[in-house]
Amino acid sequence: MVSLEEALKIIEAARKKALAIGQPMNVAIADAGGNLVAHVRMDDAWIGSIDISIKKAFTARAFNTSTRDLAALAQPGREFFGINTSNEGRIMIFAGGLPLKRGGKVVGAIGVSGGSGEQDQAVAEAGVTAFS
Amino acid sequence: MVSLEEALKIIEAARKKALAIGQPMNVAIADAGGNLVAHVRMDDAWIGSIDISIKKAFTARAFNTSTRDLAALAQPGREFFGINTSNEGRIMIFAGGLPLKRGGKVVGAIGVSGGSGEQDQAVAEAGVTAFS
Amino acid sequence: MVSLEEALKIIEAARKKALAIGQPMNVAIADAGGNLVAHVRMDDAWIGSIDISIKKAFTARAFNTSTRDLAALAQPGREFFGINTSNEGRIMIFAGGLPLKRGGKVVGAIGVSGGSGEQDQAVAEAGVTAFS
Amino acid sequence: MVSLEEALKIIEAARKKALAIGQPMNVAIADAGGNLVAHVRMDDAWIGSIDISIKKAFTARAFNTSTRDLAALAQPGREFFGINTSNEGRIMIFAGGLPLKRGGKVVGAIGVSGGSGEQDQAVAEAGVTAFS
Repeated sequence: MVSLEEALKIIEAARKKALAIGQPMNVAIADAGGNLVAHVRMDDAWIGSIDISIKKAFTARAFNTSTRDLAALAQPGREFFGINTSNEGRIMIFAGGLPLKRGGKVVGAIGVSGGSGEQDQAVAEAGVTAFS
Repeated sequence: MVSLEEALKIIEAARKKALAIGQPMNVAIADAGGNLVAHVRMDDAWIGSIDISIKKAFTARAFNTSTRDLAALAQPGREFFGINTSNEGRIMIFAGGLPLKRGGKVVGAIGVSGGSGEQDQAVAEAGVTAFS
Repeated sequence: MVSLEEALKIIEAARKKALAIGQPMNVAIADAGGNLVAHVRMDDAWIGSIDISIKKAFTARAFNTSTRDLAALAQPGREFFGINTSNEGRIMIFAGGLPLKRGGKVVGAIGVSGGSGEQDQAVAEAGVTAFS
Repeated sequence: MVSLEEALKIIEAARKKALAIGQPMNVAIADAGGNLVAHVRMDDAWIGSIDISIKKAFTARAFNTSTRDLAALAQPGREFFGINTSNEGRIMIFAGGLPLKRGGKVVGAIGVSGGSGEQDQAVAEAGVTAFS
């Protein structure tokens, strides 16, 4: 489980990181069931990234993986090529989604979208750190 | 425009109202473009209401109306019967969505879902009051 | 949580009831996140009911309610009219879906489809009884 | 035809294999019509793999092929590139789906998802063996 209080704490840490790197972001938190707990879109963040942030969070929980790692396996010729057409379009296969763990078990996930893959990843990592 | 800061203030007021009436809620805020600014699911709120709260906010902005008023017009035999199958399923036709106005102009909307229609409406109104 | 072992026990009880009333059924079990744990289609049960049984289980968990009770509120003029166009078509608003509770808390749901509303409801109730 | 009794027997063999290799799996069985007969998600198996296991079973029956063989033909530049966007998104193009044959004729299929392509394939093969 990820409580709303925890989700908002994670989001706050992610926002601070996004401000620090100067790139407005969408940040979404999912619980153990992959369902949305909270989402924020920072002022001037891309509207196309609302959906992507929510789906990255779902994806990271759906496969207990970072979406960046999944991206590598979803390339042409790799073992999960085509996985992004599963789950009714809810799978995103690029950086910015990370599992949230407690006691070694995945209990939710964070999804970040609004900048480059590297920026999204950095902001997601800041959120994970705040949860640990 | 509804800034993220304003959205979180509206959500906070809505949460307080939800706590006061003892019914956990999903609360979503949309901006002038109908796009999500922020969403929170209170602990133990229905997971089926995540989607509904977001769509009520979209609907209230999409037609600059309360979803409760739209509900009346969307009944069998009334002039907007069937409207909820438009817009790729993003239209919700029951109480809990309200426009957010500034200077007489609609600049966004709030969508609330998690209880009876009356409860959702009361929580949405608390959010609107905090914005005014 | 509903473990797979528990899900199969619930399904077994539901199957026995379906055999007793002579109507082959689809039976689906969802966990706390609304995600499928197990599904079976009895021989000669309707193929159109595969999807319906899975969606009834989701619906019963999504709103912590029996789908039969939701059906009443989803009629024209009632407060949840139109709810079945939410959640990307995953909401079913007729009898056969029931929450699974443990210690007063909803931890999953059963969805049954393959006969009349009354038959579906009876089979779902047999499943719930086996879980209690 | 694959009866429910046969499907559960196949699933049981697949589960044993999954336990033996220490990777929890989703296992789905489809009949000659490509429609789901039974599905189980083992405890702690990925929730994103529910959908994938069901779709691998459909795919293996839809084209009477292993999904691993289809994967090769679905790569960029190959003759079935893009096939996974057909059939309303029900086609999966990576290992884990195998046809079930009786008397040389395809009568159904198994779909497995929850680990690496190699693991999914091994578990699906264990299911096929139990059916033969």
